[in-house]
Amino acid sequence: MTAGEELYKLVAELYPICRSITGDGLRRTLEVIDREIGGLEVSEVPTGTQVLDWTVPREWNVRDAWVADAAGRRVIDFQVSNLHLVSYSTPVRARLSLAELKEHLFTLPDQPDWVPYRTSYYAERWGFCASRRLVDSLPDGDYEVCVDSTLADGHLTYGERLVEGQTSEEVLVSCHVCHPSLANDNLSGIAVASRLARLLAEGRPRYSYRFLFIPGTIGSITWLARNEDHLGRVRHGLVLSGVGDPGGFTYKRSRRGDAEIDRAVTHVLARSGRPHRVVDFSPYGYDERQYCSPGFDLPVGRLSRTEFATYPEYHTSADNLDLVGPAQLQESLELGREVVQVLEGNRRYLNLRPKGEPQLGKRGLYGQIGGRSDAEERQMAMLWVLNQSDGEHTLLDVAERSGLPFALLAEVAATLEEAGLLAEATS
Amino acid sequence: MTAGEELYKLVAELYPICRSITGDGLRRTLEVIDREIGGLEVSEVPTGTQVLDWTVPREWNVRDAWVADAAGRRVIDFQVSNLHLVSYSTPVRARLSLAELKEHLFTLPDQPDWVPYRTSYYAERWGFCASRRLVDSLPDGDYEVCVDSTLADGHLTYGERLVEGQTSEEVLVSCHVCHPSLANDNLSGIAVASRLARLLAEGRPRYSYRFLFIPGTIGSITWLARNEDHLGRVRHGLVLSGVGDPGGFTYKRSRRGDAEIDRAVTHVLARSGRPHRVVDFSPYGYDERQYCSPGFDLPVGRLSRTEFATYPEYHTSADNLDLVGPAQLQESLELGREVVQVLEGNRRYLNLRPKGEPQLGKRGLYGQIGGRSDAEERQMAMLWVLNQSDGEHTLLDVAERSGLPFALLAEVAATLEEAGLLAEATS
Amino acid sequence: MTAGEELYKLVAELYPICRSITGDGLRRTLEVIDREIGGLEVSEVPTGTQVLDWTVPREWNVRDAWVADAAGRRVIDFQVSNLHLVSYSTPVRARLSLAELKEHLFTLPDQPDWVPYRTSYYAERWGFCASRRLVDSLPDGDYEVCVDSTLADGHLTYGERLVEGQTSEEVLVSCHVCHPSLANDNLSGIAVASRLARLLAEGRPRYSYRFLFIPGTIGSITWLARNEDHLGRVRHGLVLSGVGDPGGFTYKRSRRGDAEIDRAVTHVLARSGRPHRVVDFSPYGYDERQYCSPGFDLPVGRLSRTEFATYPEYHTSADNLDLVGPAQLQESLELGREVVQVLEGNRRYLNLRPKGEPQLGKRGLYGQIGGRSDAEERQMAMLWVLNQSDGEHTLLDVAERSGLPFALLAEVAATLEEAGLLAEATS
Repeated sequence: MTAGEELYKLVAELYPICRSITGDGLRRTLEVIDREIGGLEVSEVPTGTQVLDWTVPREWNVRDAWVADAAGRRVIDFQVSNLHLVSYSTPVRARLSLAELKEHLFTLPDQPDWVPYRTSYYAERWGFCASRRLVDSLPDGDYEVCVDSTLADGHLTYGERLVEGQTSEEVLVSCHVCHPSLANDNLSGIAVASRLARLLAEGRPRYSYRFLFIPGTIGSITWLARNEDHLGRVRHGLVLSGVGDPGGFTYKRSRRGDAEIDRAVTHVLARSGRPHRVVDFSPYGYDERQYCSPGFDLPVGRLSRTEFATYPEYHTSADNLDLVGPAQLQESLELGREVVQVLEGNRRYLNLRPKGEPQLGKRGLYGQIGGRSDAEERQMAMLWVLNQSDGEHTLLDVAERSGLPFALLAEVAATLEEAGLLAEATS
Repeated sequence: MTAGEELYKLVAELYPICRSITGDGLRRTLEVIDREIGGLEVSEVPTGTQVLDWTVPREWNVRDAWVADAAGRRVIDFQVSNLHLVSYSTPVRARLSLAELKEHLFTLPDQPDWVPYRTSYYAERWGFCASRRLVDSLPDGDYEVCVDSTLADGHLTYGERLVEGQTSEEVLVSCHVCHPSLANDNLSGIAVASRLARLLAEGRPRYSYRFLFIPGTIGSITWLARNEDHLGRVRHGLVLSGVGDPGGFTYKRSRRGDAEIDRAVTHVLARSGRPHRVVDFSPYGYDERQYCSPGFDLPVGRLSRTEFATYPEYHTSADNLDLVGPAQLQESLELGREVVQVLEGNRRYLNLRPKGEPQLGKRGLYGQIGGRSDAEERQMAMLWVLNQSDGEHTLLDVAERSGLPFALLAEVAATLEEAGLLAEATS
Repeated sequence: MTAGEELYKLVAELYPICRSITGDGLRRTLEVIDREIGGLEVSEVPTGTQVLDWTVPREWNVRDAWVADAAGRRVIDFQVSNLHLVSYSTPVRARLSLAELKEHLFTLPDQPDWVPYRTSYYAERWGFCASRRLVDSLPDGDYEVCVDSTLADGHLTYGERLVEGQTSEEVLVSCHVCHPSLANDNLSGIAVASRLARLLAEGRPRYSYRFLFIPGTIGSITWLARNEDHLGRVRHGLVLSGVGDPGGFTYKRSRRGDAEIDRAVTHVLARSGRPHRVVDFSPYGYDERQYCSPGFDLPVGRLSRTEFATYPEYHTSADNLDLVGPAQLQESLELGREVVQVLEGNRRYLNLRPKGEPQLGKRGLYGQIGGRSDAEERQMAMLWVLNQSDGEHTLLDVAERSGLPFALLAEVAATLEEAGLLAEATS
């Protein structure tokens, strides 16, 4: 089984669970993630806890929910798809006319066969989502409505996995875990982040990597509130979301716009040969909104494939297991690994023979018959690293200026270091 | 009557007056302006006064001027159009042959029916301007020439109107008032500036606005010389000239190139949907030359429609009441008002809940059913203002970065301020 | 004879000499250069001298070299073309089979009629270069090989010519003199640099100009090692190489990227109307590699016509007297002179009447009939120089901002200085 197939399998396993920003579906999801990567630290934050400008809401759980017609037949059924129930619907048991019922029904007029995804976290109400076609077919008459949910004091749950590195400087990788049966907008990020964590944990990277599996908005706000004193250790960060669909990549820059993470991802994408676009920060989207709020201004960007809300399946029942695919998930994982490689390898060096070129030939580092019309890329890489290693430029600077691949520059930097021509700059 | 029609009416009233850089025509013009806006402070600066590197010239007035043929028939007549006389022509009464006369005649070879506009402020001479067709038709013979003018010690006259605002920081609006019967190149700026002054005087703006109605070059130099100690209060400035023709707008940046006025006008034009271009500063043009001289370097740009000297009617008798129109004048006035709105509203704010997003929902500032595919522009505007309000960015910065209209950002900033989420940055 | 024809004649005279990075061919070349420009100071640096990270190699001289067939007929002959012998070939006298011989033969598979240029300075070996066609035609059998060369302790030779200027600040002009019978890649630069030196020596320029005629790489490294303490006086520098071919100009920026020399050459090229391109620095090429190593980082760019290694004749026998031409050489010389003019004339000035425009008319510097539709370029130049002369901007800054030709700006600056309106900024 390829890595992509394994990622897809994980997505498929998590797909049926009814997640929301709190509740048991979220807990079950974290259990699966812990099984995958091990060492997941799960936090339970009580309802009512003040977190920044917000308050941890009551916990929501649902046992069952349906709309039945006069004959008692369930015409809309939570058991068929958890998308049918507006997330955070309050409990209700009532008999309504069709007209009264319709005030609680949400459809997609433009996509008559799809069920929309709707939430009402902070306003107490109940509602159902269904296809337009179904709603249009409902005959007049009375309907029985049941939302067998609880909205009660409890906890907000989130998980984090720290892969300890050689330093306490951290790379933050964050994905949301609060969407129910939506495959791309939730599960793809979970799958790729989990696998990245597992791969990093196999070694001992330079940075420590902190993976957050959190409910959107309130989760990142809660984590930020509880870790406010430790944010100084976050050197780079990436929100992963919507990385399973077949579209090209979208990287959204951090609020800073030219943070190292921005330049690293841009470089990797530019050399990837894959269709992609890099867009400026805007204060709308996923949890980068919170990490990049002005009081924190963390260097956190977001990696997605097709930008959210720009593909028709977004926040509908069509964001299902057909939308995501093993190949896309694997490609996203690979891109993530390449970004990690750049972050890990991006150092500043000092040329220890900075006056004139060092004689590479006598060190066996140069072709020995001169006069050839073209220099090999590897030798160009050496010359670039030597020329730019004045303590001011990182390897990523050199990659950007030279147009050479980062990995090659990192490799020749190691060679030059061994040859005593280069040393890492310490300040 | 629309505002545009009123502006046009003022242009038409001022059109026949023989203005120059000094003299009674200029005084009559300022009287009309004062009637329009009230509170015009008129200065009279004596001939010979040293102003910076210049000297206030003698005052020029003309009672009559003509060229008559052997039969005594006036073939060129100042009474028909004041453009026929070279401005600042010295008095003369003589009989000349056609050949001698022609050395004093100016025509436009490429526009045989138009009369050029010519001046000779600083070299004592006399001359007449006429259409090429007329001059070509003059038969040989003697001609009687009369310039019944006075060039004598007197005064240079200019007017200024201060609209006092809440602060003593000033916006300078300058237009020249020294051209005779030229409609676009003179009167359009006077009309728009006058109306802008009247509109501002109806309220109490944040800035004080100083409107200068001055003869070109020598007038701004005189004003600068006499106000050298107070120039520090000039925060923004705009020269208005040539704002009545049907062409697209031209904004010429200040010498600084990125002054707030430059960015404000650029933003307004970019969002106006009107054809326009923004050009870099150059040391040629109208009085921005003086305000932007290196010893002052004031943040003063220039707003015109078609750039001067690039339309055929420029400095000819064809720059008449047919060239300018009510609609164009009104559009220019509106643009000026929009620029004023940006300057007035352009503040730096501090997000008072800068860590994470403040919870807009609990303050009634956010839609309550989540999961919708698109955010409304107004909510985006709030998020942008909150995100960028770190005390570093002005609303214009936010407008430029977000691509949202300035007015919307200013409106939501006020809403957020009321909600206690935002405060104006004081330093 | 035009200057171009004289340059071509010099190229033709130097063409047959067998140059390398050391040896008598190099000495003979410097003698010819000294005859052309006078005052050439020739340095002889002993073999084994440590120069930066390098060691001065043994001196190489060759009396004869050939490959003869079984019949004793020379099938490859150094006397016919010095390109036939790999430069720095060690002495050998041997009888070899064709297969053994071929291990020492270099050809150009893609250009079967051309002889490649090959060197082996730092690895002891011998070899011959020949056309592919010839090598393919060699019958099986034994061949007699003779390389009658010496590789022995001696000296590395280079020449420098200092044209003393009014200050000790220097402009470095460097060209390599180590290639044998290659016309464009060697001799064109020598010819243009020599003539530039002669022309500059006719006057007393503002800067001192130091012309280096040096073997590539080891020569510039040697010169840098011996002059390390004096490099602070180098204000600008230019490597001249490959300036005789018919292609457009290529300017390669210094490592700094925006040094005055970079801007000067870019400005001259942009206004030249000649096809050209300006490319970023890279650490590969000619001796700019050494001057721009991070320990020196001198402001040295390179001027070429077609970029080396991008034309088929590069480093082959086809880089001969047919590739270069008098017109191209002359054009390159002219461009060099224009660059010198910019460097010489590029000063910062102070407007002594910085408040408002000075009254040019009373100083006879302005046309006296106003109101004309266009200003003349010369008056625009005056206004630009006055407006920008705040002590911050050089004339090159003014040229770039205004789009006016540098020479015109320098001319009006002198006029304004005479008129007492401008003074050179001293700090």
